[in-house]
Amino acid sequence: MTRQTKFTLAQINPKVGDLDGNLRKVIDHCDLARAANADAVIFPELAISGYPPEDLLLRRDFLARCENHLATLKSQVKGIDIVIGHPLVAQVDGQEKAPHKIYNAVSVLRDGKTRALYRKRHLPNYAVFDERRYFAAGSEPCVVDLGGVKVGLAICEDIWQAGPIAQSAALGAQLIIAVNASPFHNEQAFLREEGVVRKNARASKLPMIYLNQVGGQDELVFDGSSLAVDASGEVVARLPAFIEAVETLTFADGKFDKGKVAPRLQGAELIYRAIVLGVRDYIDKNNFGGAVLGLSGGIDSALTLAIAVDAIGKSRVSAVMMPSRHTSKMSIEDAQSQAEKLGVKFEIISIEPIYQAALAQLAPRFDAAAVDVAEQNIQARCRAMLLMAISNKFGQIVLTTGNKSEMAVGYATLYGDMAGGFSAIKDVPKMMVYELARHRNQRPDQPIPPRVITRAPSAELAPDQIDADSLPLYDILDPILELFIEQDKSADEIIAAGFAHEVVHRVIDMVIANEYKRRQSAPGVRVTSRAFGKDRRYPITSGFCPSGFAPSESA
Amino acid sequence: MTRQTKFTLAQINPKVGDLDGNLRKVIDHCDLARAANADAVIFPELAISGYPPEDLLLRRDFLARCENHLATLKSQVKGIDIVIGHPLVAQVDGQEKAPHKIYNAVSVLRDGKTRALYRKRHLPNYAVFDERRYFAAGSEPCVVDLGGVKVGLAICEDIWQAGPIAQSAALGAQLIIAVNASPFHNEQAFLREEGVVRKNARASKLPMIYLNQVGGQDELVFDGSSLAVDASGEVVARLPAFIEAVETLTFADGKFDKGKVAPRLQGAELIYRAIVLGVRDYIDKNNFGGAVLGLSGGIDSALTLAIAVDAIGKSRVSAVMMPSRHTSKMSIEDAQSQAEKLGVKFEIISIEPIYQAALAQLAPRFDAAAVDVAEQNIQARCRAMLLMAISNKFGQIVLTTGNKSEMAVGYATLYGDMAGGFSAIKDVPKMMVYELARHRNQRPDQPIPPRVITRAPSAELAPDQIDADSLPLYDILDPILELFIEQDKSADEIIAAGFAHEVVHRVIDMVIANEYKRRQSAPGVRVTSRAFGKDRRYPITSGFCPSGFAPSESA
Repeated sequence: MTRQTKFTLAQINPKVGDLDGNLRKVIDHCDLARAANADAVIFPELAISGYPPEDLLLRRDFLARCENHLATLKSQVKGIDIVIGHPLVAQVDGQEKAPHKIYNAVSVLRDGKTRALYRKRHLPNYAVFDERRYFAAGSEPCVVDLGGVKVGLAICEDIWQAGPIAQSAALGAQLIIAVNASPFHNEQAFLREEGVVRKNARASKLPMIYLNQVGGQDELVFDGSSLAVDASGEVVARLPAFIEAVETLTFADGKFDKGKVAPRLQGAELIYRAIVLGVRDYIDKNNFGGAVLGLSGGIDSALTLAIAVDAIGKSRVSAVMMPSRHTSKMSIEDAQSQAEKLGVKFEIISIEPIYQAALAQLAPRFDAAAVDVAEQNIQARCRAMLLMAISNKFGQIVLTTGNKSEMAVGYATLYGDMAGGFSAIKDVPKMMVYELARHRNQRPDQPIPPRVITRAPSAELAPDQIDADSLPLYDILDPILELFIEQDKSADEIIAAGFAHEVVHRVIDMVIANEYKRRQSAPGVRVTSRAFGKDRRYPITSGFCPSGFAPSESA
Repeated sequence: MTRQTKFTLAQINPKVGDLDGNLRKVIDHCDLARAANADAVIFPELAISGYPPEDLLLRRDFLARCENHLATLKSQVKGIDIVIGHPLVAQVDGQEKAPHKIYNAVSVLRDGKTRALYRKRHLPNYAVFDERRYFAAGSEPCVVDLGGVKVGLAICEDIWQAGPIAQSAALGAQLIIAVNASPFHNEQAFLREEGVVRKNARASKLPMIYLNQVGGQDELVFDGSSLAVDASGEVVARLPAFIEAVETLTFADGKFDKGKVAPRLQGAELIYRAIVLGVRDYIDKNNFGGAVLGLSGGIDSALTLAIAVDAIGKSRVSAVMMPSRHTSKMSIEDAQSQAEKLGVKFEIISIEPIYQAALAQLAPRFDAAAVDVAEQNIQARCRAMLLMAISNKFGQIVLTTGNKSEMAVGYATLYGDMAGGFSAIKDVPKMMVYELARHRNQRPDQPIPPRVITRAPSAELAPDQIDADSLPLYDILDPILELFIEQDKSADEIIAAGFAHEVVHRVIDMVIANEYKRRQSAPGVRVTSRAFGKDRRYPITSGFCPSGFAPSESA
């Protein structure tokens, strides 16, 4: 009879720095795997520390505790191979400035012994990744016997680069196990499954287990979506996206028995679910009792409210409508109606007396200067003051409600509507905001009033104001922004794609000029291939100008 | 007669992204060098683009313009060797995902030709540096004849590592020229001169020209302090710190003629001058007409006001005193007296009516909840609202006035006293704030009222409040913070250094818990060896806890 080997995929949600909590979770999943008679259990990249630990990795006390926790795991769990990611400290003698090296490593532990140790070889240092800030690169492949199967180990970026899989194959690997902390963006799960995991399996003729962590960590969401594929590239198991999951697969004769194949999420559902998880984990991992937000009657806050309720439940969410003289009756009605529909605590607190008092105090200084954007910003800041007061008094996080299009061009008030601890739709362009709202309204509860979706967007900070007074229409603005921000296209290239010269230059100038606002913005969930934040690091002080350069004129 | 070679050191202040402006400045300095009959003129690292260009380097349009500007320089200036740093794009065929490599390069240009090209070999990717995010590393030394002298080229980090200088020496170099963008912190100039430049010269027995850029760029200040040292390590020329400077040195028989040796600044003067430059360049390079700040009668805003006036002149600075019921008469008097002494525009605008209006609007929601920090934060946010309104109306940047000790433990109000475009003393611990204030008062104008320095620090947000109600005394707090933040010491190590267990744990907990505030703080001048901002990248969501770990308890 052919030997069967059982692998348990533990798609867990660690928390960065919470070594005790992560270890408990790992041990619990080892117990689950043993109960399923697994030969080996597989955890994500840096499961001990959480990913990304950032500059905690520069602390010797943190590294020492990671080592302690790994030792505890090794000594406490018996009778199963544990494949687990962790930081590895290697002392280097005779170097004063760098007395140790750190590796991003995977150990195979069993019965108190370290059976194998693999050091990540390809260290991503682009986009949201800074791994060369912390880690030294490994240089050797590692093939280890797990339950009679020769397994080649890999960590995340290793399988996106040529070399490691082929080298494991040359050493006789019959199966590749890749452990990952692969962050979500809207195309990543597809790219990963089609362009990397299945392609690698077919090219190497080796089956692969692709184990990814799940959960939100500041700006990042990890979607899970762990996979097992056979040597032909067929997906034999897919763990669900955006939740913790555990599954035990049987491997025999070089093949997996068919496991559960969770559906691959797409489009608006994929993005919506990512945001909900990002919001939930930010709130819960930071121990907030609940969330409060300003509900304006507009689409951004309406979508954010629906997300908040889906993330943490209606009992933990409250909404405040803060009208001024410029707030329409429609806005108040729609805000009230949505709050009632979702069953969240709702209040109306006028900003007028505060706004009036501020104008009165400023009158001598303003000295009859024309009314301009300064007065609009005061209104937004009155609202921030009220929301933050409620937050401070009751321990609820303020969810700020701006979208990516606004963040890009600076159509938002710093310390006003930008104020808040977390930004659900920060990386969602306005047109996608509409798409997500319509998508969410397909569920039976239809939380967003239809008029909120169909009315012309307005900040309601001046009489009869609409966004289109200040900005191109969003179906023009958003594609320009995507070409400039996500695709790094030049002004000329964007114009060549069919947009008006004046509009393109104006938009790019706004993006460049508003870096200072974004630098002080709340973190928010990354959903595109280039989010503001650690994914896009532009100087504030910048002479860069989209107008191009005419060398003959300059000198 | 021995051949004399003349080198012009052009210690310029480029602006990131301002390719036209940087090129004009380079050409002007080439003209100065030619007027001095120099054989070669030396510019800083990445002088064409400014340093650090950050993600502008991911843009093909930006890189193409850098190439155009370098070509313009090459074609327009004749009769002198130009040693200049710039990004270098090298096409790599057959790679879909990375169609080009970028190097941090130095070219030697003369009469329309590129005489030599050196690619930086050691790419710093620690602290404030992210060079491996952008650049590929060079692998070859480069020795070039400049005016009859064999010169080995190096770029910044290259001379902090073993290898490059020795390899140039082996190729016959008679002189090392290192071009740099070496950012300031309080020990850096000393480390650089004593630990690197002089030491390298002695070890290699080669004289060296160390050319550094000057100027402020967001969080960073470059101090200049360019050097020429002879083969014995003696400093034969030192350019002044914190200003643009140009000097032509004569080299013959392996030795420099003695040049001007500017004094090496130390202690409070060094730090004060760095901050003044950082503030000036942030304001001027971002085209602000002037600056406004809230003058509270306390030491932080008093010092910030003195810095602002020294940076941009009294006519461009205005101060606002914003009293509440908790503001002492002493504070109003001292603020007024300082503003008068410095000759800045000064106003008093009470926050009371706005604060009252906010409390009244919140009363139903607060529903007789006990007065707590929420009310204090409202006061701070009233002040932010007024300052930002003045900023928006008149185009003055708000200088925020918090110090590093406050930023570390979160003793500051987000969107309140933290609001502002730039933070002069963000990286200055409170004890150093006092030192800088006393130092500045040694100048004849004595801008800071003595009582501001001697009174007990208070936020004046509650009756009879002083900082010591909430925080350890600053002479206890600051050394704990330095051990934890700058030296990465563990709680146990800090306790072993003589601090109370309870205090150490409380302080560390506050530092960890307030990362979210710092993430939304204004940029400010880095003056220590680890500043908040890009220099220290901690997760917000973090289970890291200073209390240590008892493995036996956790599982």
